[in-house]
Amino acid sequence: MSGTAPTAAPVLPVRGRLRPLGLDAVRVTGGFWAGRQSVNATATLAHIEHWLERAGWLRNFDLAVRGDLAGGRRGREFADSEIYKFLEAMAWEIGRSADAELEARFRAVVRRVAAAQAPDGYLNTNFGRPGQAPRWSDLEWGHELYCVGHLLQAAVARARTRPGADDGLLEVARRAADNVCETFGPDGIDGVCGHPVIEAALVELARTTGEDRYLAQAALFVDRRGHGRLSDVEFGREYFQDELPVRQATVLRGHAVRANYLAAGAVDVAVELKDASLLEAVRNQWTNAVACRTYVTGGQGSRHQDEAFGGDWVLPPDRAYSETCAGVGSVMLAWRLLLADGDPRYADLIERTLFNVVSTSPAADGRSFFYTNTLHRRELGTLPDPDRPSLRAASSLRAPWFEVSCCPTNVARTLASLSAYVATCDDEGLQLHQYLPATVAHRLGDGRDVSVSIATGYPYDGEVRVRIDGDDERPWSLSLRVPEWAAQGATLTVDGDSRPVGPGLVTEHRRWRRGDEVVLSLPVAPRFTYPDARIDAVRGCVAVERGPLVLALESVDVPAAESVDELRVDVDQPPRLVDGRVTVRCRRVHPDHHEWPYLAEEGGSTPVVGEELDGVALVEYHAWANRGPSTMRVWLPVLTDQAG
Amino acid sequence: MSGTAPTAAPVLPVRGRLRPLGLDAVRVTGGFWAGRQSVNATATLAHIEHWLERAGWLRNFDLAVRGDLAGGRRGREFADSEIYKFLEAMAWEIGRSADAELEARFRAVVRRVAAAQAPDGYLNTNFGRPGQAPRWSDLEWGHELYCVGHLLQAAVARARTRPGADDGLLEVARRAADNVCETFGPDGIDGVCGHPVIEAALVELARTTGEDRYLAQAALFVDRRGHGRLSDVEFGREYFQDELPVRQATVLRGHAVRANYLAAGAVDVAVELKDASLLEAVRNQWTNAVACRTYVTGGQGSRHQDEAFGGDWVLPPDRAYSETCAGVGSVMLAWRLLLADGDPRYADLIERTLFNVVSTSPAADGRSFFYTNTLHRRELGTLPDPDRPSLRAASSLRAPWFEVSCCPTNVARTLASLSAYVATCDDEGLQLHQYLPATVAHRLGDGRDVSVSIATGYPYDGEVRVRIDGDDERPWSLSLRVPEWAAQGATLTVDGDSRPVGPGLVTEHRRWRRGDEVVLSLPVAPRFTYPDARIDAVRGCVAVERGPLVLALESVDVPAAESVDELRVDVDQPPRLVDGRVTVRCRRVHPDHHEWPYLAEEGGSTPVVGEELDGVALVEYHAWANRGPSTMRVWLPVLTDQAG
Repeated sequence: MSGTAPTAAPVLPVRGRLRPLGLDAVRVTGGFWAGRQSVNATATLAHIEHWLERAGWLRNFDLAVRGDLAGGRRGREFADSEIYKFLEAMAWEIGRSADAELEARFRAVVRRVAAAQAPDGYLNTNFGRPGQAPRWSDLEWGHELYCVGHLLQAAVARARTRPGADDGLLEVARRAADNVCETFGPDGIDGVCGHPVIEAALVELARTTGEDRYLAQAALFVDRRGHGRLSDVEFGREYFQDELPVRQATVLRGHAVRANYLAAGAVDVAVELKDASLLEAVRNQWTNAVACRTYVTGGQGSRHQDEAFGGDWVLPPDRAYSETCAGVGSVMLAWRLLLADGDPRYADLIERTLFNVVSTSPAADGRSFFYTNTLHRRELGTLPDPDRPSLRAASSLRAPWFEVSCCPTNVARTLASLSAYVATCDDEGLQLHQYLPATVAHRLGDGRDVSVSIATGYPYDGEVRVRIDGDDERPWSLSLRVPEWAAQGATLTVDGDSRPVGPGLVTEHRRWRRGDEVVLSLPVAPRFTYPDARIDAVRGCVAVERGPLVLALESVDVPAAESVDELRVDVDQPPRLVDGRVTVRCRRVHPDHHEWPYLAEEGGSTPVVGEELDGVALVEYHAWANRGPSTMRVWLPVLTDQAG
Repeated sequence: MSGTAPTAAPVLPVRGRLRPLGLDAVRVTGGFWAGRQSVNATATLAHIEHWLERAGWLRNFDLAVRGDLAGGRRGREFADSEIYKFLEAMAWEIGRSADAELEARFRAVVRRVAAAQAPDGYLNTNFGRPGQAPRWSDLEWGHELYCVGHLLQAAVARARTRPGADDGLLEVARRAADNVCETFGPDGIDGVCGHPVIEAALVELARTTGEDRYLAQAALFVDRRGHGRLSDVEFGREYFQDELPVRQATVLRGHAVRANYLAAGAVDVAVELKDASLLEAVRNQWTNAVACRTYVTGGQGSRHQDEAFGGDWVLPPDRAYSETCAGVGSVMLAWRLLLADGDPRYADLIERTLFNVVSTSPAADGRSFFYTNTLHRRELGTLPDPDRPSLRAASSLRAPWFEVSCCPTNVARTLASLSAYVATCDDEGLQLHQYLPATVAHRLGDGRDVSVSIATGYPYDGEVRVRIDGDDERPWSLSLRVPEWAAQGATLTVDGDSRPVGPGLVTEHRRWRRGDEVVLSLPVAPRFTYPDARIDAVRGCVAVERGPLVLALESVDVPAAESVDELRVDVDQPPRLVDGRVTVRCRRVHPDHHEWPYLAEEGGSTPVVGEELDGVALVEYHAWANRGPSTMRVWLPVLTDQAG
């Protein structure tokens, strides 16, 4: 389907090992993600619009037109960006479903936004008017360029799903981007934004419009960062990734959303400008962050104080921040690296993060969200007030909205564009990175149309059946990702012949016939997972995983327990599947009470072993806290000789 | 020495199980604490004064007099309090040493402070003048009552060490307190301060002046708190202890300094008003906080974000906040409870906190300080700029001063008044709670003067020799605390007869003769300490202690190591004393590098065992980071079968 129409995908690099397929090429036909997309379309988008109106953040644009902003503006300094992410989510959803009613809502919001743009292209409801701070007067915290970045991403999504639409959003974005280039160009303000995203957004707008000045401006922002142009705030300049130039840094650090967004933009710049050393620097940062600073869920950021990465190995489950938006940013970064390098490890992390962070945030009904995604809750959470925005990290269960409400719109735009992260192509053929019931259609470089249908019960069933939908006289390649977690027991069956396959991309190059089937069989039996010995916070514990899903022990599944902390898991018995649920054998323990919890003898600190609980059911981590307040843990202490 | 002169001690309850002895009664004659007091007197006080001038915080009072404050004021909203804590520290030091030069400096500062007081008694450099926010307009963050509280404590220290002095400080304090009572009395503003301390301070001023209205006002503040009078800030009202009334709370929670200061004030009110239920509530809060929310060092507060207690068992060593001031607050609270109840467990915590938190903060030279006291440093710290105030938690090694510089002055006032926390009396005789070379003199209720001399090399030597300095025909009681950590092997020798003694207060009631000796022998051989099984963050680890001292593994003591994280301690060999240093046997381990740190098999996560290091020397925790940047850990992973 490539050719005249643009590919309906968020990232369209000019070069790279793999080329993305878009919403036009990949249609999700059922399964886990179709359910999530449906809830997103039918519930979440309306929920977001309701709160954007209720909180007054949309109305800020109307007030700007009326000249009433200075006193009446509502929301934090970055509230505009939520409207833009909402627009982006709607654009993808319209591209996916062609929903006419949503199209009308989209246009209505665009009209309100466009009306507030200044004649010179500047667009922000929080700065520059009488009674407000001057434009660009607070680069650390003002988020003006950040807001423009999300505006650009919305316009790019629209341009790629409804090219030539007469709603005017792309023109608004171009004028805003032109204003940024004029203001922050080589002769302009020598600054960067406290919160990256403008970099990736400018590159994508350049790719969409062919305007090289946007790319040049993005490259300038990437180069400027890391030289202390931002103030030394309480969290240090690392918070903004402004303490070290991008090409010198060796690991992701600081605020986890900022870190991922910046790195994603740097990849975009590096790919466009063939800047191999910049790309290598980001690749290295990603590799080290994944090896030493990422939760088993794929979550990133272990510090509440500054929503930041901790140092290497600092991954406390009970104070995991693992912000939903950092998960979205991690998917953005890994996808760009996958396109550039083709290494399936990037797709491994995307899969893990989508299943265990992005899909954990929204409740089953799509109307409340986790902002942070802890891996251990010790005390019963409380249900947030459904009629009030929650404080971000303070809300202990999913909340309908937040004072800082970046996560719901980020989840919405990601779910609506999800099929753009499933498959890629190269000159040889197709690569499938994520498994879900879908059809994938693509026109090869030589003009041949090829298409496949994927049938699978994944991730619950490990069998992925890929059927070829057309005959072809000439051979082409079909590649499938074998995840790293499937190192033992994966097989590929082609034309009746099975063979074991190991992690990586497995490629079949042949002359395909309609009806040919490739069956990838992945070992999704539940398994124990052990942490690296350097992660102090989970020493002596195991996690349980099933395929790409991380599981959790939730108190509502434990008989007569309010706390999950008094169970020890018996690793001599592997986890089992019973009636569709993963179960483990545990023992309840009864720690002695001590007036002082540090004891002279190991025996003194060893809890008394109590009853055995066989068949304790675990819950998929993404589905926890959907049954009322509970306690929960992902990392389960192992029953030891001392405690057994 | 009781009688007409007031007892020179910070807390003088009207009743209670034990009565405090002051600086007048207890003279430190040598040893660990004499050294700390000497550095405090000769280096720290001048260092503080230098920075108070340099930072402009003292000058704020001069500007107030000149009317130049609104534009020229320097420092945070609570900067005034540092001047008051400095005054308090000087007052105790003058009481201890009668230093004439210090007396002159003290008077000079008092003059500058007094000159800034408004005619109605209000005294604060940050509010109420043209260009400033109105008085009492920001009870959450303004710290106005907090500053008054520290002013009162300074005045009380002065009144008890130099009764009748003509410097005017007590009058300044009375007028400020009167202004508080008029403003916040039953018919005044129905509010409380975001940061407690005024409660304890008003009670002490009442005790010093006999003015019951100060006590009534303190009681009103205690009763008012916990009903949501303060705003619901991002950290929640728990931060201010304003989410639950003092008498309903069951554990210390929220900001750890605020929590301890408030609880201390509540004890004072409860004791004065014979409010048994209020006292019981605080006692219960303390018991639960010590059992479930306190580090092995005695440190409190595990959260950087809000400097707050974590939930029960959330005690991560690598993100320990353990603020120095929370340690000071904990000593204040435990001392009040000790006086009220007589339970030696309070003195156990005081000892632990003094040795491992309060004395950890200052460098050996008394000119730089830890604000937070982590139990695990993974990366080499950096030496803060000696010419610039550091950000509080951001400074990785001891810093000369902080933007928020509460800790140096808090340490100084505590060290200067330290001998007031050593001994008490009751109708039967003397109780010794802390062991150090000292003389203790006291006039019993029946008019007899008794005195003892303590000779000891404690805490390095467990032998404490208490010599009776006078003959007496009638018997009296001498009580000594046997710490909880000395449960095995402590003996008491009186008149040549030895007997084993267990934890608690051991009392000898007899007719004493000059030269009689009581020798307490405490088992200070180094020992392993195991954590309660519920403290997830240190599962599988041990600490090493020696008497009341917590020890740490510091990288400068490990051959060819930058990181201490690659050592495992062999618990089959008890720690040993070699050339005066505690040593343990370790193995170096070599964890494999993994691209993803969560592994399918336990073997995969088990580090390869390397060389054995016998005789790895540990450092006293309070003395770490005095030899340049290093890594450090208190909790040492135990060598296991898997790793060995």
